[in-house]
Amino acid sequence: MLVSERMYGLGSERSVIRELFEYGKLRAEKVGRENIYDYSLGNPAVPSPACVDEAITDIIKNEPSIAVHGYTSAQGDAGVRQAIADELNARFGTKFHKDNLYITCGAAAALTIALAALTTEECSEIIGIAPYFPEYAVFAENGCGKFVHVDADLEHFQINFPALEKAIGPRTRAVIVNSPNNPSGAVLSEDTIKKLASLLEKKSAEVGHAIVIISDEPYREIVYDGVEVPYITKYYRNTIVCYSYSKSLSLPGERIGYVLVPDEMEDSGRVYAAVCGAGRSLGFVCAPSLMQKVVGRVTGKTADINEYKKNRDLLLSGLTDIGYECVKPQGAFYLFVKTLEEDTEAFCERAKQLDLLVVSGVGFGCPGYVRLAYCVSHDMIKRSLPAFKKLYDSYNK
Amino acid sequence: MLVSERMYGLGSERSVIRELFEYGKLRAEKVGRENIYDYSLGNPAVPSPACVDEAITDIIKNEPSIAVHGYTSAQGDAGVRQAIADELNARFGTKFHKDNLYITCGAAAALTIALAALTTEECSEIIGIAPYFPEYAVFAENGCGKFVHVDADLEHFQINFPALEKAIGPRTRAVIVNSPNNPSGAVLSEDTIKKLASLLEKKSAEVGHAIVIISDEPYREIVYDGVEVPYITKYYRNTIVCYSYSKSLSLPGERIGYVLVPDEMEDSGRVYAAVCGAGRSLGFVCAPSLMQKVVGRVTGKTADINEYKKNRDLLLSGLTDIGYECVKPQGAFYLFVKTLEEDTEAFCERAKQLDLLVVSGVGFGCPGYVRLAYCVSHDMIKRSLPAFKKLYDSYNK
Repeated sequence: MLVSERMYGLGSERSVIRELFEYGKLRAEKVGRENIYDYSLGNPAVPSPACVDEAITDIIKNEPSIAVHGYTSAQGDAGVRQAIADELNARFGTKFHKDNLYITCGAAAALTIALAALTTEECSEIIGIAPYFPEYAVFAENGCGKFVHVDADLEHFQINFPALEKAIGPRTRAVIVNSPNNPSGAVLSEDTIKKLASLLEKKSAEVGHAIVIISDEPYREIVYDGVEVPYITKYYRNTIVCYSYSKSLSLPGERIGYVLVPDEMEDSGRVYAAVCGAGRSLGFVCAPSLMQKVVGRVTGKTADINEYKKNRDLLLSGLTDIGYECVKPQGAFYLFVKTLEEDTEAFCERAKQLDLLVVSGVGFGCPGYVRLAYCVSHDMIKRSLPAFKKLYDSYNK
Repeated sequence: MLVSERMYGLGSERSVIRELFEYGKLRAEKVGRENIYDYSLGNPAVPSPACVDEAITDIIKNEPSIAVHGYTSAQGDAGVRQAIADELNARFGTKFHKDNLYITCGAAAALTIALAALTTEECSEIIGIAPYFPEYAVFAENGCGKFVHVDADLEHFQINFPALEKAIGPRTRAVIVNSPNNPSGAVLSEDTIKKLASLLEKKSAEVGHAIVIISDEPYREIVYDGVEVPYITKYYRNTIVCYSYSKSLSLPGERIGYVLVPDEMEDSGRVYAAVCGAGRSLGFVCAPSLMQKVVGRVTGKTADINEYKKNRDLLLSGLTDIGYECVKPQGAFYLFVKTLEEDTEAFCERAKQLDLLVVSGVGFGCPGYVRLAYCVSHDMIKRSLPAFKKLYDSYNK
C-alpha cells in the first residue's frame, strides 16, 4: 500500500520521550512504581484549579445543549475571544480585541496553523533557537517549511546572537522563541528581547521582508521568584503569539489555546485571514466548544504553581548539593542538567540503569545536557536523590 | 507581509454557506427572525441526548482531574477505543479492536489526517462523487493532493459508474464516499457498494496499486424508514472510515470522531502508522480528553432522530405538493431540490428575495439543485411553505 513516507516515518518512530515513558511503565510493573524515578514527560501533576470543573458543571447545568455543544465560528466564540483579550490587556497593558484572536486546539495546532499561514515556497525557513521543543521541526515541515537550528547560549540560556545572525538569510520566514523555555526553564529577559527585536528589524530590512517572531508560550504563567515574562508584541510588532491552557490550567488533554495576531503587525488583516485559512485547510473547523466557554470564564487563573516551585527547589538544591551543574529554572517545570560525560546518550543510559529516566538534550538541539520534567510528585523527587548521588559517584570514584 | 496565498484565499473567501448564514442573521434583525426561512447551515437543531451531559457531569464529579484532563495517547484512550470497537462489532458483525481506531477532532480532522497519510507525490488524485461536501477539495489539497470531480447520478443519486470509471487513472489514490449523503440525503445501497467494490478491485489491478475508499460517514445513524447503511469495510477491504459524533450526538462544536483502519486493509499496520504520523504532523496531539471519555460511554446512542424525520416528512410533502421535484432523503438532514430554472444561482437569488435561504448545488458539484438543511425548527418549515409556493408560482404564471 502506498502511504506518505514522511507520515509513516513520523508515526512509526516513537519520540524518544514517549519511548522512555513506555519503558518506565513496563519497568514499574517489574520493580514497583516507587522504585522508578520517571522524569520523562511534561504532563502536569498538579490538578486543574477548582474553577475549571466548576465552570464545566455550571455550563452543562445552566446553558442549553445546542449552544454549549454547537459549532462556534471558526475563529472561536466572539465573547470568549473578547474575554481573553480583556484579561491580557489588564495584565500586560496591551490593546487586543476579539479579532486579534483565533482559538485553537492547543499550542501544537496554534503552531501548525501559524506556520502554514506564513510559509511560502520562496520564504520557508523557520529558525529554532536551541534548546527547543523537538516537534518544532515536525510542525515547520508540515507547513512545507525547512527547520533551521541555532546553537544554544550555553552560558546564560538566553539567545546566542552571533549564531542567530548567521542563520538568518533571504529565505528566513520566522524565528520561534519559547519563554519560559522547555527544556531549560530559562526566561528571556527584557534585554534579550530588545536585542532580538533590533536584530530582526535590521535583518528584515536587509532581506526585504518582515521576519516574524512566533512566540510559543504555554509556560507564560509558570514562573518563580517573581520573574517577569515580557509580552513580546510590545517589543516587536511582527510577533504572532501561540498560547495553550495545557500547562497553566493543567488541561493538556483538552486541546485549547489560541493564535494571537496583533493589530500592530504588518498587514495584520491578511495574516489573520491566512491563519483562518490554515485552520480550515488543516481540518480544525473550530476549537472544542465547551472548553472554549470554560477558558472564557477562567482565563488568567492557574493551577497551584507553588507545587512546582517546591519541586524545583528540592530538585535543584538536591542535585547541586551532590555536585551536578544545573541551569536554574525561572519558569516551566523542567530542569536542564549538564551530563557527566561527553556522550549524552551514554549518560542517559547509565542513569536508566539506576531507574532514573531523564531525556537526552540531543533532541532539543543541545547535547551535553539532559531534561528532567519535575511536574511529578514531591515524594518521587525525594526518593530519587540517592540514585542521583549513586550516578554522580559512578563518574567520580 | 508574505503569507501563503492558498491559506489567505481560504481564509478571506467565506464559504457560500457561511455567507448566506451571516446574511440571514442580518436580515432577521431587520424583518424579524420569524420572517426568515434559513435552510443554510447543517447545525443540528435537536439537542444532545441526556446521556451526554450526564456522562460529562459524572466524569467531572467522580474521576480525578489529572486523569480527565490529561494527555491521552495520541491514538486516543485505549479503553475508549475498545468501547467504540465493541459497539461497532455488536451492531455490524465486524471484528474491530482498539488498534484499528485513531480518535480525532471530528470528521474534518479524520479526513485531513487520512488524506495526508495516503497521498504521495506520484499518487495524489482524490475523487469526489457529486454531489459532495465542498470542503473535500480543500482537505485533499491540504494533503498536497488533487481533487477530481465525478458527475452525479441524477437519476437515483447513487453512483454514476461510467463517469467514475473514466475518472480513475494511474494517479488515483482514493475515492471519497459519503452515505447518507450531504447534500442529497441519499444512502448508497448494498448493490451500489458491491458494484463500487468490484470496479475498484478491477481498477486497482489495472493501475498496479490499491485504490482506497475513504468513507466519510457522520450521518450513519441518521436514517429513516428503516433503511440500512451497509458497513463498507465488509465489501471492500481497502476502506478507511472517517466518523464524527457531531451529528449523531449533536456535538458539532466538540470536535470528536475517529479514523478506522481495518485489519483487512493491505499493509494496515503501515497505513495506521501513517495516520498516527499525519495526526502528529498536523498538530493534533490527541483528541479532546473529556469528550473522548464521554463518547466512550455513549457511543452508539443518538439524539432524537424522529425530530428530523418529522421535518423531512413535512418539508418533502410540502414541496412535492406545490410541484417541486425533490430527491427523497433516506438519511442525513438535507433535502436536495431541483431548481425551476437552469441558472442555479439566479434561482437561489430569487428564493432569497422571498427570504428563503437555500444553498446552490454548484459548490456541491451538482448545478440545477439546491440544498435545504432541515435541521431547523418544525415550525419554521411550516411557516416557510407559503414562500415556497410563491417562488414556484413566480416561475409558473
